[in-house]
Amino acid sequence: MKKKVVLAFSGGLDTSFCCIYLSQDRDLEVHSVIVNTGGFSAEELQEIERRAYALGVASHAVVDETDNYYDGCIKYLVFGNVLKNATYPLSVSAERVSQATAIANYVKKIGADYVAHGSTGAGNDQVRFDMIFNIIIPEVEIITPIRDLKLSREAEIKYLAEHGVEYSAEKAKYSINKGLWGTSVGGQETLTSHEMLPEAAWPTQVTESGNRRIELTFEKGELTGIDGESMAPVAAIQKLQAIAQPYGIGRDVHVGDTIIGIKGRVGFEAAAPILIIKAHHTLEKHTLTKWQLSWKEQLASFYGNWLHEGQFHDPIMRNIEAFLADTQQVVSGKVFVELMPYRFQIIGIESAHDLMSNKFGSYGEMNNTWSGEDVKGFSKIFGNQVMIWHKVNGHED
Amino acid sequence: MKKKVVLAFSGGLDTSFCCIYLSQDRDLEVHSVIVNTGGFSAEELQEIERRAYALGVASHAVVDETDNYYDGCIKYLVFGNVLKNATYPLSVSAERVSQATAIANYVKKIGADYVAHGSTGAGNDQVRFDMIFNIIIPEVEIITPIRDLKLSREAEIKYLAEHGVEYSAEKAKYSINKGLWGTSVGGQETLTSHEMLPEAAWPTQVTESGNRRIELTFEKGELTGIDGESMAPVAAIQKLQAIAQPYGIGRDVHVGDTIIGIKGRVGFEAAAPILIIKAHHTLEKHTLTKWQLSWKEQLASFYGNWLHEGQFHDPIMRNIEAFLADTQQVVSGKVFVELMPYRFQIIGIESAHDLMSNKFGSYGEMNNTWSGEDVKGFSKIFGNQVMIWHKVNGHED
Amino acid sequence: MKKKVVLAFSGGLDTSFCCIYLSQDRDLEVHSVIVNTGGFSAEELQEIERRAYALGVASHAVVDETDNYYDGCIKYLVFGNVLKNATYPLSVSAERVSQATAIANYVKKIGADYVAHGSTGAGNDQVRFDMIFNIIIPEVEIITPIRDLKLSREAEIKYLAEHGVEYSAEKAKYSINKGLWGTSVGGQETLTSHEMLPEAAWPTQVTESGNRRIELTFEKGELTGIDGESMAPVAAIQKLQAIAQPYGIGRDVHVGDTIIGIKGRVGFEAAAPILIIKAHHTLEKHTLTKWQLSWKEQLASFYGNWLHEGQFHDPIMRNIEAFLADTQQVVSGKVFVELMPYRFQIIGIESAHDLMSNKFGSYGEMNNTWSGEDVKGFSKIFGNQVMIWHKVNGHED
Amino acid sequence: MKKKVVLAFSGGLDTSFCCIYLSQDRDLEVHSVIVNTGGFSAEELQEIERRAYALGVASHAVVDETDNYYDGCIKYLVFGNVLKNATYPLSVSAERVSQATAIANYVKKIGADYVAHGSTGAGNDQVRFDMIFNIIIPEVEIITPIRDLKLSREAEIKYLAEHGVEYSAEKAKYSINKGLWGTSVGGQETLTSHEMLPEAAWPTQVTESGNRRIELTFEKGELTGIDGESMAPVAAIQKLQAIAQPYGIGRDVHVGDTIIGIKGRVGFEAAAPILIIKAHHTLEKHTLTKWQLSWKEQLASFYGNWLHEGQFHDPIMRNIEAFLADTQQVVSGKVFVELMPYRFQIIGIESAHDLMSNKFGSYGEMNNTWSGEDVKGFSKIFGNQVMIWHKVNGHED
Repeated sequence: MKKKVVLAFSGGLDTSFCCIYLSQDRDLEVHSVIVNTGGFSAEELQEIERRAYALGVASHAVVDETDNYYDGCIKYLVFGNVLKNATYPLSVSAERVSQATAIANYVKKIGADYVAHGSTGAGNDQVRFDMIFNIIIPEVEIITPIRDLKLSREAEIKYLAEHGVEYSAEKAKYSINKGLWGTSVGGQETLTSHEMLPEAAWPTQVTESGNRRIELTFEKGELTGIDGESMAPVAAIQKLQAIAQPYGIGRDVHVGDTIIGIKGRVGFEAAAPILIIKAHHTLEKHTLTKWQLSWKEQLASFYGNWLHEGQFHDPIMRNIEAFLADTQQVVSGKVFVELMPYRFQIIGIESAHDLMSNKFGSYGEMNNTWSGEDVKGFSKIFGNQVMIWHKVNGHED
Repeated sequence: MKKKVVLAFSGGLDTSFCCIYLSQDRDLEVHSVIVNTGGFSAEELQEIERRAYALGVASHAVVDETDNYYDGCIKYLVFGNVLKNATYPLSVSAERVSQATAIANYVKKIGADYVAHGSTGAGNDQVRFDMIFNIIIPEVEIITPIRDLKLSREAEIKYLAEHGVEYSAEKAKYSINKGLWGTSVGGQETLTSHEMLPEAAWPTQVTESGNRRIELTFEKGELTGIDGESMAPVAAIQKLQAIAQPYGIGRDVHVGDTIIGIKGRVGFEAAAPILIIKAHHTLEKHTLTKWQLSWKEQLASFYGNWLHEGQFHDPIMRNIEAFLADTQQVVSGKVFVELMPYRFQIIGIESAHDLMSNKFGSYGEMNNTWSGEDVKGFSKIFGNQVMIWHKVNGHED
Repeated sequence: MKKKVVLAFSGGLDTSFCCIYLSQDRDLEVHSVIVNTGGFSAEELQEIERRAYALGVASHAVVDETDNYYDGCIKYLVFGNVLKNATYPLSVSAERVSQATAIANYVKKIGADYVAHGSTGAGNDQVRFDMIFNIIIPEVEIITPIRDLKLSREAEIKYLAEHGVEYSAEKAKYSINKGLWGTSVGGQETLTSHEMLPEAAWPTQVTESGNRRIELTFEKGELTGIDGESMAPVAAIQKLQAIAQPYGIGRDVHVGDTIIGIKGRVGFEAAAPILIIKAHHTLEKHTLTKWQLSWKEQLASFYGNWLHEGQFHDPIMRNIEAFLADTQQVVSGKVFVELMPYRFQIIGIESAHDLMSNKFGSYGEMNNTWSGEDVKGFSKIFGNQVMIWHKVNGHED
Repeated sequence: MKKKVVLAFSGGLDTSFCCIYLSQDRDLEVHSVIVNTGGFSAEELQEIERRAYALGVASHAVVDETDNYYDGCIKYLVFGNVLKNATYPLSVSAERVSQATAIANYVKKIGADYVAHGSTGAGNDQVRFDMIFNIIIPEVEIITPIRDLKLSREAEIKYLAEHGVEYSAEKAKYSINKGLWGTSVGGQETLTSHEMLPEAAWPTQVTESGNRRIELTFEKGELTGIDGESMAPVAAIQKLQAIAQPYGIGRDVHVGDTIIGIKGRVGFEAAAPILIIKAHHTLEKHTLTKWQLSWKEQLASFYGNWLHEGQFHDPIMRNIEAFLADTQQVVSGKVFVELMPYRFQIIGIESAHDLMSNKFGSYGEMNNTWSGEDVKGFSKIFGNQVMIWHKVNGHED
């Protein structure tokens, strides 16, 4: 009886090659699986399934992880206002971790002997897949044909043709990855340090031209309504994305450190993630204390980086999630945003938890809660240690 | 013989009142001083001087701190990419600290017995002035007539009129503060949580409509050239501001914690600071290591907050400056930016220190420096501890 | 009808003075209260009550906060291994916050109009009391007779005598404060920078001379057993203290920053806190991952400092507690400790969650989980970025 | 002509095997080198040299790195009070990095084609050596015979005998590594989680029984005198070690995370490092501001961990060193310490920079610099935000 291999299958050239290679050259029973984290339509998933069976897989499965992905990961990226290097919502990084975890669980479920992925030896994904498989299914051997065989694109196409599978020799100009938390666009210009993606490279073209005001409702840190209509967070993200991406909002190029130590650059369009994070952060500036804002920033920055490096299953991540969730109890209210072509403006917020309530004194206005004398005393004591330091050591200038 | 008081003088209603009050009611010899940190033109300074003498001051001095302000503070805000709450370049906070320090040194220089400032009891500035005076000139008594007497605007105007000084009863709709590192705009909408400043409120109206590419040259973290022309950093900031502000770039509303614990909101236009920080940060993403970027973020965030709270003279600030300066040795190169109405786009960079150099392997492409086997080993060891943790404690899902 | 004042009463000179002063000079109905956080015996509490009524209070109450104090605060100091400046278990700081909170709640309960405490103007406690009262009972006026009247000890004794209360003129050489989490000792030598408390100054003299092994059992971070006997954490702390303090363990002098900016020094004996923290930390080194240990250190350090400064009611403290509690799920097991006069040695641990389990490879021994090739690959990739940096920028030496 | 290999040579079984193996089986010209970081006596170095030539090396070199090791690394461990996991002075970690760097530079100097080290595949040292060689001499191939061949101790002895080299079959009970910054002791008990090294295992036996007071002089953070006698820091460390180790001071067992993800345990005796760090830290508590102490702790903790992981050549380490050095400008003065068998007590300090100077108010005593009113105002403002938070959100208990 043949041994079973689960193959992470996308329908592209690399994983199509793997299908044939694993069954023909390695004599394995191939069970392809695709994990949807919100980036695929039903039609796309059907087309991928059709292709899998055409390549002769023993079974093909679609695992819908969208809700788990949101609950287990995206939610915390919102709570933490995570933008890697102050720019990138971690669209792909978060998704890969979720996919690798779902595949590992699928391997356990069907009792496979091997697990295979189509990563090359040059990117982040190989580390995420390898590491998460090593953690969740350490006894299962990992096979990575593309990385191991180092075949060129042409060689893969030739191999497929020899096995009766036609594959177009034309390569897409850009490599595109679409998910719930944004779409990445890589290739050509992003391989240089000095060029920007051209207008035509963006998957969503700009079709909106006027201004539009929207109202985002947050409950305990989660987006639960748009323009007064309540909806579940996943649906709200998808709706906001549909509204805002045609404005060209949330496009940029991220420059960052790969897990393997080299620098990489990637374009992305992520209107909903960017709008949600900026709106959520503004609501927090009104409702959280100074030190909550400060510590959230530090912990969330680490959380984003460690997630990016595939270390989602380190228990420190659960601990930070507990912290982040605990900070969100009063992060409820409405945020008003104006959308315009290529940009947006946070207009303001309204919240029962707004600490800027002028019941307690307004910035720049006198009030009854404290007096000028109180502030004089405060200033004296607040500067006491530094005053002493300068008396002891002399003033530097 | 009368005792001397140094008065921080801006020419506005509050400090005009202080002039008369200190000389007439307190019987002091008033020496007014204004510290220019790059926000005043020669004409404005002359007008303020004229007004001071008209109010009967014994002497009036202009201290030009622009270069000191840049060297002692702004430079480090660039090195640290400091944007408070991910938004505000600390335009006013940094300036006040510089002004208070210069005034304290002026008090020492002319041997005054008192120092006076026109702050009310409701803002950040009173704390910055009080505290820095307590630190640098602890033996000099601080007088704050506006805070102490709690006079209304009308009462001040009436008092001035009684002492032969006419002052217009009409109040400016917005309070505006202009300096090298940006212009703040407060009033009306910024006193609410939910309204945005209207177009007309911005000191610099948008007069540019096309696109313009510019090239910013950085040497060891400092902006030293625009479009190939070398210039000193202060001149470069001023030139960039003149070019970019008419595009409406760098406008936003900052929501933050005041030193006295309440929340405050303020508008600002700061085209040059925002462009410089974003361009500089992009250059750093290409030239610094992962942990340099991470620690810079943490230390700079504290540096900005502590500066905002007026604690510039804490020796920890010197220590952090030493750290930040040391990180800038390789932050040299060109950054290409495209200016457009209300927004801009960082196009890319060029640097001899670019770590993305494809001599060492490109993201997503195979290379000769390491092999797929190396990454397999890396992934195994990199995930080792978490793998062990899950074996010992069971996998959570 | 007289207005009610709640007085934080210890039975000492200062609060005895306050009793008389508040009822006679201020014409208030005095309700004294003492909060026990584990430092008082039943006899001591009875004696204090007797004294209160002798001073003419309208009522006297004892609030036993020991369990709340443990559950709301001490527990987290253990989870965080909190030793301020690597030395001090925050014995007094934590206790004052707990006492101030309990008093504020008592004020609410009996509906008092005023609250009074006997702090002077020179220490930390005044800030903790003032601030916590301002936060929990902002509408209640605070009276601080000792701070406001600036009376000398002699003047207070004279005043009491004039009102028919005898008080010994002899002052204790050291000021001692005893609680569940340690006993502080201040005076004489601790007022200098260069002298150590003499043997006789310590409240608990060293009476044990041999060696003794003990076994401490932790469940999810809490001490729940000694030498195999299960008990509640508060009882366990008290028992361990009774066993270990006669060895002279956990004595030291803490040098630290007061809330008001000056430096202060205080002696303490805290055998149980020091033993528990060191044992707990050792158990964590075996059971937590690298980054859990690292982040716990940072967050707990802030938690301790912010608690010390009286800011216990900042919601960030609840968020950090959520984090710390979440880290403790696997911190269960036994720790073996040897007690000796003036010192102790952690011998080792035993835990079902021990990550040092040699099932997964022992330090310094070969194993089957990974190969030398894996480590070679790891080393190459782990050093990749720094290798590139040096290639680009040249090696520094 | 034979190709050259530089072999890191210690004279032990593993590197003796490497000598023969590299010249006979690999046909290389072996140039052995030993780097002294303060742990070897002249006699020991001569004996090692004798053994190298007996094994047929083409040349043998001794590189004395002690001063470089102190200046480039140990100095910063003192500035940062670095004790990994609050326990371990990083004795071995720091030394290996220094040795690997010196060897890489020696390889460059003599123009070798290969570099070899005797590490096994199970410890930290292999990663440190591999990575530092990859960074400094990336073009030189690394040979690791012991790791690659996976020979048993017996097989190595047999191989040596076959090549005419006698080696005792008896294995030392403990593996001991001696350097300037402490001596590590591993084996038997340290391989378990629950046992302590026995008295006899410690290289330095306890021979002192009385008490001894010593006075340590620090200048800008460096130890430059003992009992009034000035000396260079390296000499001072060695002298202090000679004085204090016979008291049994600074012995403990460290439990920590290895670079390869497993937990490890190692004993160490490090009287001088522990005394210097504790004395230096006490001096800092008197001379640095609150935030200097806080940030030093965070940065130094990272510095120690990253050094431990062999990442000394990451430029972030230079940046942190610049920070640490800048904090030491006022860390000068005397620290008084009492040595006793198995323990010590910091008695106090004396410094011209002591911020506890009672010129500025003593803890617990009234003073003239500020008033009780000032502190009242401070307490009100300092608690303002949290007061507002509770008014807005309700008090939690």
